[in-house]
Amino acid sequence: MNNTKSLKRLVIKIFKKHNLINEHSKICAEAIINAEIVGAHSHGLSRLKMYCDRIKKKVINPRPKIKIKKISKSISQIDANNSIGFVAADIGIKHAIINAKKTGIGLVGIKNSGHYGLSGYYAEQATKKNLIVFCFTNAPPAIAPHGSKKSLFGTNPICFGTPTFSKVPFILDTSVSVINRGKIRVAARTGKKIPEGVALDKYGKPTTNAKKALEGVQLPIAGFRGSGLAWMVDILSGVFTGGNHGGKVKDPFDDFSGPQNIGHLFFVMKPNLFVGNYSKRIKENIKRIKRLPKIKGVKEILYPGQNKQKRYKKNLNKKINLPANIVEDLKKLNA
Amino acid sequence: MNNTKSLKRLVIKIFKKHNLINEHSKICAEAIINAEIVGAHSHGLSRLKMYCDRIKKKVINPRPKIKIKKISKSISQIDANNSIGFVAADIGIKHAIINAKKTGIGLVGIKNSGHYGLSGYYAEQATKKNLIVFCFTNAPPAIAPHGSKKSLFGTNPICFGTPTFSKVPFILDTSVSVINRGKIRVAARTGKKIPEGVALDKYGKPTTNAKKALEGVQLPIAGFRGSGLAWMVDILSGVFTGGNHGGKVKDPFDDFSGPQNIGHLFFVMKPNLFVGNYSKRIKENIKRIKRLPKIKGVKEILYPGQNKQKRYKKNLNKKINLPANIVEDLKKLNA
Repeated sequence: MNNTKSLKRLVIKIFKKHNLINEHSKICAEAIINAEIVGAHSHGLSRLKMYCDRIKKKVINPRPKIKIKKISKSISQIDANNSIGFVAADIGIKHAIINAKKTGIGLVGIKNSGHYGLSGYYAEQATKKNLIVFCFTNAPPAIAPHGSKKSLFGTNPICFGTPTFSKVPFILDTSVSVINRGKIRVAARTGKKIPEGVALDKYGKPTTNAKKALEGVQLPIAGFRGSGLAWMVDILSGVFTGGNHGGKVKDPFDDFSGPQNIGHLFFVMKPNLFVGNYSKRIKENIKRIKRLPKIKGVKEILYPGQNKQKRYKKNLNKKINLPANIVEDLKKLNA
Repeated sequence: MNNTKSLKRLVIKIFKKHNLINEHSKICAEAIINAEIVGAHSHGLSRLKMYCDRIKKKVINPRPKIKIKKISKSISQIDANNSIGFVAADIGIKHAIINAKKTGIGLVGIKNSGHYGLSGYYAEQATKKNLIVFCFTNAPPAIAPHGSKKSLFGTNPICFGTPTFSKVPFILDTSVSVINRGKIRVAARTGKKIPEGVALDKYGKPTTNAKKALEGVQLPIAGFRGSGLAWMVDILSGVFTGGNHGGKVKDPFDDFSGPQNIGHLFFVMKPNLFVGNYSKRIKENIKRIKRLPKIKGVKEILYPGQNKQKRYKKNLNKKINLPANIVEDLKKLNA
């Protein structure tokens, strides 16, 4: 039997026990359960204990006074007052959408926030309103800048979305590491190996041991190109917004010495700014690419977001199976 | 002896002979000679004959009536009327800068343009005015979408720049192919081999033969991630602006059946929208990263744009040595 609703209720209850107001608890539970449904377990319930621990240790503020400053009709700034990231990001994307609906473009910079889960989750809010969107956020050190043997950049995703005027939006949500840190973390928890070529141990040697990889550094995609993209994201979401940057974002699992002060940047645009027939154009674009001859074994050329949507549909009415350690976490957090 | 100035004069003369007005000839010559100085020969004089051929064949309009439409205080649209790309892009970036200076953000979409040379060249115009900038452009088919054996995306660069409030701006200008198509083209002209793993021949087999690679497909960085980024750039610069997209941009060297109708998108922001001390913050960011322990053999961790600037300084007062075929081109074009 599908346990999505009961799990969501449980997560809301746990957050309320940890002093979040009802509305904020709901926002967090929605995002976390959504990550489970799309199969992004590294961004789902496996993080719940961490969020609650950070609230207990007073490095996440469960009752933030979030300040929203209007800079122009198109631009807003949010000081999240160390709220849990989900709440800051939810307010942020909603303001970017409002601004874009009014003026054609909406830009929102957020500081003093925390880990907000999946970028694509916020991008989807914009594409649902038929808007084009960029989401940037930085993250704790995981990737070594090109030329260095010490990690400093987060896995710093680049996230871009556009409505396709069909059921499934185009949502690219790609970290600039070869694989997501969350996946390495899950592998470490479950004792699984990671692929070759994605990480070095702390001595700078290639490793397939997930625990050693977490102590070492992850490799960026495409050498200096990926390193440059990670640096760009750190500048946009950290330097530009007023958030932490340059390796100062604390690891939420290991470092309780203070708030993360992560920065996020959302940029939203109306698709019909320059053309009257964007919906026709994007459909034609996707059609042309899907029609291309495929390499052996490939059934369909998918656009970014289609795979996730397939997982969502497949899993929506299924039972979410939880590993024993997470069942244990939930029990303790609800005690 | 330095021949930069005389070469620039010669290129201006050649463009004027091909019916461009003096001002436009100067804009083109500046961009082309700049590419030579920074060592991007694939975007320099090696393309001059192609531009002139396209003018002769009436697929570049030497006397365009460029229309500039103000959509809002922040947003402008440019219909380049099949101008040479340099001219459209020069007007475009200048308008994006003006809009950003006035409102904090400037967005400019350009359609009916052509190949504009190096994205970083336009980004630099914005960083010189102490502005943050994105430049997107699409290009003729060169990269196969993930899952396909036929190329469709251009090498579609992602270009991001920020002032560093030091002599050298941070300018990331990275194609999403493993190497630039221009470099393969130069290798094909000079009979050199290309590295392994960057391209497939027309039968889908890996090749190090530059000519075979040009007939085949280039590989995107990082598989589906690079393919997704190339698709994003095609949407932003083509679908969104009104330019050609989805593989319809013609190869400027091989296809004279009509104008390219390339689209460009420029997005410019004031760095102090959210923080009062951006200059201090970006300097601190770069300092922290440069201080990291380096891997063996690396003297300095460089930020994107530093290498190009080094080449610029080194070459500025040197003679530009031209291969025989380009000397020949120049002679014929000036005849």
